[in-house]
This record gives sequence, structure tokens and C-alpha cells, in this order.
Amino acid sequence: MEKKWTQLWLKYDKKQDAGNGAFVQTVKFCGFDTKAAVVANAWKELQRGVSGMLGIVPALAGDGTENPKMVIALDAETVKKEGYRISCNDGCLKLEAADENGVLYGVFHVLRLIAMEQPLSKVTILCEPDNPMRMYNHWDNMDGSIERGYSGNSFFFEKGELIIDERITDYARMVASVGINGVVINNVNVKDEATWLITDRYFAKVAELSNVFAGYGIKLFLSLNYAAPLELGGPDSADPLDEDVIAWWKTKMAEVFAKVPNLGGFLVKADSEGRPGPFTYGRTQADGANMLADIVKPYGGIIIWRCFVYNCTQDWRDYKTDRARAGYDNFIEMDGDYHDNVILQIKNGPMDFQIREAVSPLLGGLKKTNQMLEVQVAQEYTGQQIDLCYLIPLFKEVLDFKTYCKPENDTVADVVSGRTYGNKNAGIAAVCNTGNDENWTGNDLAAANFYGFGRLAFTTSLSAEEIAEEWVKMSLSCEQEVVDAIVNLLLGSRETYEKYTSPLGIGWMVTPHYHYGPSVDGYEYSRWGTYHRADHLGLGVDRTDNGTGYVRQYYEPNASMYNDIKTCPEELLLFFHHVPYTHMLKSGKTLIQHIYDSHFEGVEEVEAMIRVWNGLEGKVPFCAYEVIKERFARQLQNAKEWRDQVNSYFYRKSGIADEMGRRIY
Amino acid sequence: MEKKWTQLWLKYDKKQDAGNGAFVQTVKFCGFDTKAAVVANAWKELQRGVSGMLGIVPALAGDGTENPKMVIALDAETVKKEGYRISCNDGCLKLEAADENGVLYGVFHVLRLIAMEQPLSKVTILCEPDNPMRMYNHWDNMDGSIERGYSGNSFFFEKGELIIDERITDYARMVASVGINGVVINNVNVKDEATWLITDRYFAKVAELSNVFAGYGIKLFLSLNYAAPLELGGPDSADPLDEDVIAWWKTKMAEVFAKVPNLGGFLVKADSEGRPGPFTYGRTQADGANMLADIVKPYGGIIIWRCFVYNCTQDWRDYKTDRARAGYDNFIEMDGDYHDNVILQIKNGPMDFQIREAVSPLLGGLKKTNQMLEVQVAQEYTGQQIDLCYLIPLFKEVLDFKTYCKPENDTVADVVSGRTYGNKNAGIAAVCNTGNDENWTGNDLAAANFYGFGRLAFTTSLSAEEIAEEWVKMSLSCEQEVVDAIVNLLLGSRETYEKYTSPLGIGWMVTPHYHYGPSVDGYEYSRWGTYHRADHLGLGVDRTDNGTGYVRQYYEPNASMYNDIKTCPEELLLFFHHVPYTHMLKSGKTLIQHIYDSHFEGVEEVEAMIRVWNGLEGKVPFCAYEVIKERFARQLQNAKEWRDQVNSYFYRKSGIADEMGRRIY
Repeated sequence: MEKKWTQLWLKYDKKQDAGNGAFVQTVKFCGFDTKAAVVANAWKELQRGVSGMLGIVPALAGDGTENPKMVIALDAETVKKEGYRISCNDGCLKLEAADENGVLYGVFHVLRLIAMEQPLSKVTILCEPDNPMRMYNHWDNMDGSIERGYSGNSFFFEKGELIIDERITDYARMVASVGINGVVINNVNVKDEATWLITDRYFAKVAELSNVFAGYGIKLFLSLNYAAPLELGGPDSADPLDEDVIAWWKTKMAEVFAKVPNLGGFLVKADSEGRPGPFTYGRTQADGANMLADIVKPYGGIIIWRCFVYNCTQDWRDYKTDRARAGYDNFIEMDGDYHDNVILQIKNGPMDFQIREAVSPLLGGLKKTNQMLEVQVAQEYTGQQIDLCYLIPLFKEVLDFKTYCKPENDTVADVVSGRTYGNKNAGIAAVCNTGNDENWTGNDLAAANFYGFGRLAFTTSLSAEEIAEEWVKMSLSCEQEVVDAIVNLLLGSRETYEKYTSPLGIGWMVTPHYHYGPSVDGYEYSRWGTYHRADHLGLGVDRTDNGTGYVRQYYEPNASMYNDIKTCPEELLLFFHHVPYTHMLKSGKTLIQHIYDSHFEGVEEVEAMIRVWNGLEGKVPFCAYEVIKERFARQLQNAKEWRDQVNSYFYRKSGIADEMGRRIY
Repeated sequence: MEKKWTQLWLKYDKKQDAGNGAFVQTVKFCGFDTKAAVVANAWKELQRGVSGMLGIVPALAGDGTENPKMVIALDAETVKKEGYRISCNDGCLKLEAADENGVLYGVFHVLRLIAMEQPLSKVTILCEPDNPMRMYNHWDNMDGSIERGYSGNSFFFEKGELIIDERITDYARMVASVGINGVVINNVNVKDEATWLITDRYFAKVAELSNVFAGYGIKLFLSLNYAAPLELGGPDSADPLDEDVIAWWKTKMAEVFAKVPNLGGFLVKADSEGRPGPFTYGRTQADGANMLADIVKPYGGIIIWRCFVYNCTQDWRDYKTDRARAGYDNFIEMDGDYHDNVILQIKNGPMDFQIREAVSPLLGGLKKTNQMLEVQVAQEYTGQQIDLCYLIPLFKEVLDFKTYCKPENDTVADVVSGRTYGNKNAGIAAVCNTGNDENWTGNDLAAANFYGFGRLAFTTSLSAEEIAEEWVKMSLSCEQEVVDAIVNLLLGSRETYEKYTSPLGIGWMVTPHYHYGPSVDGYEYSRWGTYHRADHLGLGVDRTDNGTGYVRQYYEPNASMYNDIKTCPEELLLFFHHVPYTHMLKSGKTLIQHIYDSHFEGVEEVEAMIRVWNGLEGKVPFCAYEVIKERFARQLQNAKEWRDQVNSYFYRKSGIADEMGRRIY
């Protein structure tokens, strides 16, 4: 079988030349070695992109060349790490970069402008990454499957082996083009062969992969099995304070970094959902993280420690225990105890990547600890790349959230960028949505999330609309009418998805395990701590002072705002309050009528989206058109199933009829 | 690993000699060849059993022996096929049998009496099987797994191969000892390797197995893949009227019966739950069954055709379609069209082996068609051999059900025995509950079902209590106090299970796919046609004239009885009617209060059962005691989970409080 995959937003097809061809005919590098891997790749990319889009092959200007049209120069003085400045003076395009990564990102910026058919002559811009670390986490298993993957199998692994082929390079180009500088290739649930990635069995391949990544300014990270000593023939313990365990890790890490010198470090999911961790030995999370961090420190290694620790054997009868509290409760007390090369990776919400949930109070709640935000680009709960759900608006909401942890610079974006507390090891990570499908992301439109996360991580101030427009122009069409139509589809998609699924921040109601499609009671009597508590009078989880007290994990005035049903934002009403069906919303509708209306609207909006898409036939590439059309048809089925199950469930439970008299079963 | 398995009710441990030793010291055979396989096995069994239980090794009396104490004689005149007569005259025990199977069954009867410590001297009994065919169906897959198996893996198959070892012989002895004369070894869902059981790849082993079975009077049957022509390289069709298909089957069956002459025939699941069948080609079920039947007829083969045909992609919004109707609707019109060596195998209820459901109206509804009743000894929906559920009372209810298909001889027992319409190809089949667990059935007490089904199939008039008592005495203890205690546990267990699970015949409410444990809405919005239709006012499926009209599939007066809520038996109330929670039952309780009460009672009864069991420590074999104790502990957990989920579900939905004020969540 011939291997095939698309080039996504780097397809470099023929573009209108907005006067840009003039600049890129000869390029001069000053202060950079064009043979250094990253610079060489940047130069190769510039040639590839320009020749594809403008039909011109850029030439390297020699030292003696006077008046080169484009100069790529070192400026580590006025440009910050990984940053670059683009300007145009006297007919010369100047790209000044702080370092090699800056060159690469700057070149991709130039190519993006060409792809968007924008004149380089008018550009004056300084771009410096907002976040030091901008990472993709892949949940790929070594058997080739992907946990929560909706785009085929892994392109990193197959049958227990690493794959290193041209697609890996294309992957590196793509993520580098949006500024990603760290990638975890294996699932955080580290089992079986993946435990052995830190052994001789895989060192050669891991090192080779890390070199491919390094050529694009990307650090390779691995997910680590906390119980590795036990499984790899070391001590019969993983106690972080046990001297034999420490000695074993020291030897192991010396070996790992000797064999894979480019390695960035490790991601660890410990004491979570059945994974081993320091709690097993009566130790703290800090004990576990610090032990590893101290050992990898001499090699410049980082330990990224996930905060997804909660009781996953909860009794549904237990109304006191609140999974939403768990992250904060488990990590806040040790604030300040984590060493400098430990980063706590915190999911955006306290539950698990729902279409709407509160922002985790741990973000900014921690004041003396490195923090990294984790979001999920893979659409586990948000339509699984069948349903359209452009997630950048959701990510922006999280980043813009004011934590009130300080009088200023207190948004989540400030906290995770390091601006709030001055951390250097900080940033954003996303669970990636790619696989070996020809189009990488199952639904071609889901590539907007793959693209957009990187762009947002690099430049948090970009709007969801700007990012969408860039992506559409680079991937599908520069025709403004088409761009506008698709951008509108993307921008409205998250709210549409929210309308036909679980209402007002309550979350879940999904088919157990698979997490696609409705099952209102699917997790209601389960051990996972994910309940809606619906009865014949109302629904929602009381997380106020009268309930689980979760609201007090926020700083004021957030805590009081959430605590009071009058000031609680309505889109999170059921996340914080148990509310009668007859409760009147600000819209003048009762809660139950809002549930009915929003579910009917959601389906109507999907139908409207389909009409828009059908109108684009012939205006976007054929393959993408067909794939997306088929996905929309499935989305409509899914939306109807959600609408009818949710409405029927609440009608049957409340006995309150729809005011509009529509069909409810 | 050493292979181990128990001998169940054939363990032949030391017994009190109730004067029986005197009879079995010398045995004379008259009219039977002791070298014929079945007679030889009967003789071997008699020696084994008597020596084990009484410490005497029976000797074969020669032709000249005068006054032998036991005579086994041929009597095909006054004893019917497979039957036997036991009598005692002048100190001589006489076993007269119609044929070799009669000898075998008679010997097992004698051994049973010895095991129960009953005096042979007082016995005068004529036993003739009530049902011509008495079959076990195994849902074993060739990879060793068992569909709906709760007792380990298959002992017939492992890694795509047949196993023929000592355990197979023990299995044959056990099922022969209770009168089973036909066994289907492979899953009715025939896939992968199992399709190839009718090819050279497996002929030698299948023939060998059929010979082992034949030695115990058992016909081997195979489940057949209706699409075998397509999968085994035959014509690209399975159209039963296609001449190429017919020719292919003729050649195939000639080959099969040449290589496996003892084969009894085939069991076919066609057009059911995704399995291929004649509907695919626009043909009737009769077209499909008759085509195969005509081809196997010259070899004495039988085609057993399952009636489990229904729409398994139903829309839950569709209140008109009723899965309960499907069997009747699909098969009744062709009544009379099925050839004489076709048997329709009909599940006891119209849904699927629930703890309580109506009797299938197809049983007796068909008047000109061979019928076989199918029950499920494997506890798929009845506790999965974790929870105790003695099923013989349920089977007896079904057999005793008056269909009113004729003025007399109209019970299901009459119909499937052939008494009603004079069929010879008729009988009872059960999905078996065995696996390669040491104790065969996971829970040692579940062996009472494995034992009891065979006994009931042979002698339908036996009471559930008699069967339980036999089994306990042979398996666990002859001490009357112990026997009474365990018999009581068994006899009450089905009602207890019913109390804490789904109420009043509504069924389901189980965890999807696994079918253990509660999920009240688990199948409510699914495609399987299994709904409870609960809303805030009531629950139940209206199958009356005002509803799906299913009641009219019964003869009068059953149809009218079920149609009227006043005369409908209350244990089936919700199977036939949609009933308000406030409906008053004959007990003087409302429906909702009945739900609460029965669920609390169910748990209390499990607790009481556990107390009884704990009192038997030291009085039953240690291993069985421990296994059963552990199972009871799990049953209690399960019962509590059912109680709390069902009660909470209906409380939350109805808003009606428990009159007793007990804890509901």
C-alpha cells in the first residue's frame, strides 16, 4: 500500500503574488550558519514554499552580494529567545531572529503571509513567544493504537517499534510552523513496550527521532512509567525516598541522556486512574516529582508532572466527595515544594475536557510552582473529529480567565506563560488530534485545531477568528467569500456542539468509555465522580458553600460570584448549582425550556452548517469537501440523537412539557 | 500447569449403604453386548460408582450364573426408546431397557439412588424421556473464549483447535448421566475458524469427538455459518434457491457426513443480530432451513433453526415496533412449510432470557412445525454465576404454561415434547453454563442448573425441589439438615434475584453489553428494542390492544387475560402494561412502593442467604464452601448496587418518597 498523507497548511500550492516574489529571489543570512540543522531546514522550507506558491526558486546570496532582497540576521539583543522581527525597508525584507528557532519561525511567518496573499512590503512585526514551552502530547501506544485517537493509527509507532519516515519529518515541519517546541510521543498511560522506551531496546530509534525533531527546534519528551524500576528489573519498589530506587534512576537517567542527548525530559502521570505513583509508598506527589527532577537536572531535563489525580472509585451515593476538588486538594498544600525543573501540568478544567466547565482553580492557585496548562485538541468529549468543534474559542476563554491571584497579570495566560510569578519552565501543552489518516485529523476541519493550538500557544493575543482565517487561507481557499463562510462555521461550532449536548456546564451525559454520543445516565451511577444529580425537580451539582464547597478554591471575587446563583455565569450554572427546572434564566426562559430550546436549536444549527458547506462544493479541494460533507452527515445524526435523548430524558423526568409543543419522546 | 477439574455430582465418594451393596456385586447383561460402546461405558460407570460409593467392585456374571443380584435386560416391547424400568423382585434388581441409551440412563439412575443413600429394594419405576431431543448448546468460540461464559474458557477449543482429552469424556459422562442426548459444541455466532469446522482442517478431530460422545449416547451437532459458501471458497452467494449454492452444499454435506458419520446435524442462527441468512437474498426462513434440511436428510441429519430473528437496529423513538412480536411475526406465516427434519428452536420468552418475561407465543402458536424450546442455563441476565439463581423453577413455569393451542395436551411441555401435534423431532435445548474452571460452573451452586436442566428435559414432571435435593445429595451432602438448607437457598434464589433487579417483568435495566449489574437506562435509548418507557408518571410497555398488540399473538383466554390490567398476572404487569407509579397492586401497595419494598427485601434476603451459608461451614466440602462464600459476598454488593440504583432512579423520576422513609439516594 502506498503511503499517502496531505501537507495540510503547508501544501504550498500556487498563490496570487502580492508583490512578494520580488523579495524572496535572493536571501542573505547574517550571523547564522546555513549548515546548522535548524537554519538549513528553514532555508529548505523557504525554497520549497516560495517555489511552490510563487514559482520562484530563492537563491542564497553570497557574502559579496550587494542589496539582497531578503536578509535573515541575528539579533539576540532586541529580540527575545525564539523570537523574530520582520520588517521591510527600502525594498529589502528583513528577518531578525534571536536564535535558530527564531529563524525557523520567522521563515514560516513569511511563508504564511505569502500563502495568505498578503504583501510582505507592509509588514512590521515583532513576534516573541508568549509561552516558553509549547507542547503537543500524543497519546500514542506502541501497538499503533491511539488512546482517544480519531484519525487512524499512530504515525510514531507500529507493532511495538518506532517509525521514522518522511511523515515524521512532515509532522515536525507542521508543528514547528506553528511554533511548537516540545513533543511527547507516547501515551501518558505508559504500559508494556512503552515502559522500555528508556532502554537499549529503543535508544537508537529514540535518538534518531530526537535528531529529526531537533532539526525543527523541537525537544523530544517521553512519557515515563513511574513503576519502571519494578518493570525493568530494578529494585522491587518505586518509593521515591528509597535509596535503591534513587540509585537505579540515577544510573538509568545517565544512560538515557547519554544515548539520547537531545531529550527534553519526561511527562509523568502518577497516582491517576490506576497508574502507579508515590502515593503507593505513602509519599507526596512532590517527593515523586522532585526525585526524578533532581536526577535529570544535570542533563537539563524537565519533569512534567500531571495533576489529574482524583478518586476514580467514588461511590455515586457519596454527595460529599467532589472530583472537581481533587486536583487542588491534592496539589495545593505542597506549593513551593516542587523543584525548579518540575512543571505541574494542569488540565484547563477540574473535571476532564468537557465542552464547558469551570477553569481549574489550581491555575494561579499555585503561586510558587511551575505550571503548564493542558488542553485537549483531540476531540474526546467534543465530537471526536466527526462533529465540527473549533476549540480555539474555548482555549482562549481559559487563557483569558482572571484568577485574581495577583492585582495584575493574573489571567491564566499570565500564569502559565510565567509572567505572573516569573517562572521560566512554564507554558501550554495540548493532547494532539493527529493520526495516520491521509488528512491527519480525520475531519479535515479538525486540522484548524491542530494548527490553531500552536499559533495560540505562541501568540496568545491572536483571536480565534484570526487563527481560523489564517488556517482557511493556507489550507482551503483564499477566496474571501469562502474564507468568511468557513471561518463562520468554525467560530460557531463550539456553541452549536454545546447546545445539542450537555447543558450549562454540567458535562458528561456521554456513552461510557467511548465518550461519543449521548447516555444521560451513562456516568450517573458510576465510580468516576461525574454526576448530574438530576431528579424530578431539577439538576446540577451543588458546589457552593452549601454543597461540596468547591467554590472556595477560587480567589475572591470569583468564589463569591460562583457561590451565588444570581451572579454565577449562566453557562456554568449547573456546574456550580443544583437548580430547579422551573428556575428562570436571564433569557426569561425556565431551565427546562432552555434545555429543550437549545437542543432543538443545536440541531437546526447543524442543518444550517450543512447548507453552508454544500454551497462550497467546487470552491474547496474535492477530497476535503467530500470528507467534511460525510462528517457533517454523521454530526447531524449525532446531534439528533443528543437532542432526542436529552429532551426525552428531562421531559420524562420533569413531566414539564415543551412550551412550543415540539416532538419529544 | 496440572489440569484439574472436579467430578461434580459424579464424585462417587463414600456413602451409607442403604442395603444396596447386596445387589450390585454381580451383574448380568441379557440381550446387550457389553462390548458395545454405550453398554461398555455404562458397565464401567457402574463399577466406578459402586466401588467409590460402597467399596464393592461389581463383577460381570457369566451366562451360567444363577440368581445374579442384578440383571440388565433388553425390553424394547414395553419400554419406549431410551427408556428403562427398574424394579426389585425376590432380592434381584432388574433394569430393563429399550436400548443402549436406556441401559446407560438406567445405570446412572441406580448410581443416583445409591448416592442419595436410598434403598434400591424399594424402587419400582418406569422412566421414559419426555422429550425426544435433550440438548446442550455451547457458545464456545474456537479461540477458547465463551460468549456469555462465566466459568473460565472453553474445554472444547483452544487457540483455534479442538481439545480432546479426559475432561471431554468426563463432560460426556456428566451430561449423559442426566439424559442429554445431543450437544452443540460451538457458538451459534459462527465466525472465523468455526466456519471451517466443516472442512478437512478439522474433520479428524470432529469425528474423534463425535465418537467420544457416541459412547455416551450423545449426538454431536455443530453450529453452521449460513454464509459458509462465500467464506469457504464456494459460490459468491448463500441464496438458498441458487442452484450453485445448493450444489455446493450437497457436495459439502456429502463430505461432512462421510468424514463424521455420527454427526447429528446443525444449529443455525440466520438473519439474527448481524448474522447472514436467507433474508439477505429475499428468501424466507423456510427456504433457508429446508434447503439445508433436504440436503442432510439422506444422512439422517437434522437442521435446528433458531427463531431469534428481530430488528436489532430499532429506533428507540419508535413505539410501534415491538421486539417481543418479532419471533411470532417472522415465523408464524410459514407454519407448515418447514420440512420434517427442520426444528425451530424458540427461546422461552419473546425477548431474551430475562429473569421474568412472558412465554413466547410462538410455542404452540406453530401447529405444523417441529419445535424445540431453548432456555439459558448460562446466567447471562440472571447473575452470571456470581449471584445464585436456581433456574429450574423458571424453566418449569415455562413448561407448565397452558398455551390453549388445543383443548388438552396444550402446555409448552406438551408442545415441545411432541405430544401435542405428534412430532418426533422435538425437545428442549439449553445454553450451557460450563467452562474450564475447576468446578465447571464458576459458582459451585450453579452446577445445580447444569444438572437440573438435563433431569428436567428427561422427566418434565420432576419438581424443582426434587431435582435440587438430588443434586445436593450427590454433590454436597446427604445430611438432611444440610440438604434442606441448601435446597431452600436454591428454591428461593430466583425470586430473590428478581426482587433486587428489574421489577414485574419489565426486564433489562442491565449494564449494556456485559449484562451484569444495573444500568436502568442502559438500553433505554438503544437500538435493541428493549425499553422500559419510564417517565415521571409510570413505566412499562403497553403491549395490549391499545399498544403494540402483542397480546393477540396468544390464544384465548391468554390474550384477553394479558390484555386486561385487572387479570394480567402481576409478576408480568410491566411486560404488558404501562402503569402509573400510583397503581394499586393486589398487595395493597402502590407500584412505586412495591419497587422500593422488593428492592430492600431482595438485599435482605441475600443477607439471610449468607447467614445460612455461613452456618454450613464444615458441613460441605471446603473448596465449594469457600468459593460460594466469596460469590455470595459479590452477590450482596451487586444486590445493593441494584437496590440503590433502581430505587434512586425511580425516586428521582417519580418524586414519590418511600413510605418507610428508608435511605434512597
